[in-house]
Amino acid sequence: MNDIKTLVVLSGGIDSTVLTYDYINAGRDVYAISFDYGQRHNKELECAAITCEKLGIPQKIVDITEIKDIMYSSALTGNGTVPEGHYEDASMKSTVVANRNSILINLAMAYAITQDINRVAYAAHGGDHAIYPDCRPEFVLALKALAAKVHYTPIYIEAPYLMWRKEDIVKRGIELKVPFIDTWSCYKGDKLHCGKCGTCVERLEAFKLNNIKDPVKYAKK
Amino acid sequence: MNDIKTLVVLSGGIDSTVLTYDYINAGRDVYAISFDYGQRHNKELECAAITCEKLGIPQKIVDITEIKDIMYSSALTGNGTVPEGHYEDASMKSTVVANRNSILINLAMAYAITQDINRVAYAAHGGDHAIYPDCRPEFVLALKALAAKVHYTPIYIEAPYLMWRKEDIVKRGIELKVPFIDTWSCYKGDKLHCGKCGTCVERLEAFKLNNIKDPVKYAKK
Repeated sequence: MNDIKTLVVLSGGIDSTVLTYDYINAGRDVYAISFDYGQRHNKELECAAITCEKLGIPQKIVDITEIKDIMYSSALTGNGTVPEGHYEDASMKSTVVANRNSILINLAMAYAITQDINRVAYAAHGGDHAIYPDCRPEFVLALKALAAKVHYTPIYIEAPYLMWRKEDIVKRGIELKVPFIDTWSCYKGDKLHCGKCGTCVERLEAFKLNNIKDPVKYAKK
Repeated sequence: MNDIKTLVVLSGGIDSTVLTYDYINAGRDVYAISFDYGQRHNKELECAAITCEKLGIPQKIVDITEIKDIMYSSALTGNGTVPEGHYEDASMKSTVVANRNSILINLAMAYAITQDINRVAYAAHGGDHAIYPDCRPEFVLALKALAAKVHYTPIYIEAPYLMWRKEDIVKRGIELKVPFIDTWSCYKGDKLHCGKCGTCVERLEAFKLNNIKDPVKYAKK
């Protein structure tokens, strides 16, 4: 698998950042694609750019803010209040952006086709199953089948963390010496991680389960 | 199937316009979605708007010009020369926009989800198989399978003309009394249809095979 051109969907969060380091570690020829879809937490995008610079990989940033109005006016892009609490709570459904992953992966496939890359990787994982329909294994399987048919030759979708929990990804990041300070998770766009929203709670849990301290700073409670 | 809410992907070309009339004829509760992806032939979009107005159906226009740069810089959106000749010629491959149909249908699905619509219809048909990978039956089957998994409840993709030829669609349009004057096909964005590009050639053939005259005006040869 070494040297194989692979386009990684890199948001700048923990999952996709660890995935990028993992593929670099495996000797892949890595390219990154990041999306600006009008999310409040654009610190994610800044983190993605830092990771690409550090690893010396080309990054394509795609502005999809124009299409955000056809997705849910969810807490992530609208003016609604970002819910606090655990990810798996019902209130977190307001953070679902309709069909987001399928749209992003399909855009990534289009870019891959133009760059003569036939592998697209993303960091879907088990912890998101409960609330995001497009992170479930059956969705990823259907996406893989579609990817085999969208072009004259197949595009291969890789989602190696699909059955992992968040803490497994953090563990892998520790092994790979990923600088977690270069990742952003908080859904609120403040200067520091809030420590209260679903993704902050999940992040804190994952570090705690690995018995290490998260290097990012959190707002005082 | 009557009264069932259905979102039709309406470009303003013959195929999707006939499809829209077909669904109205069947008593469906039709909604239309049209995409502006920076194509030269934006007369298509004007035609789509006219059809929606005449039929009294709501139309959503989505501006996706920002994402066109990640697709091929093809003849349809770039500054390349629009090839002339028959659709099935190799030169027509330059009119392929990478992964276009999958992106558009996935965006349509996102809009459908926000509008509580669970059926998305588009007018893929047999005549396009030769050059567009994402018009082939196996692609549509894979897309249907994906659509069943993108949301909490399935989205149904309908492509009733999939095995039809262009002339079959024109025949159906004649039966439904579709005003073909409200459709646009030419890939060149001139005032009149050029009569020479792949889609004009295909259009002229389809009318000829039905022994009727195309009501749109063509540029003098």
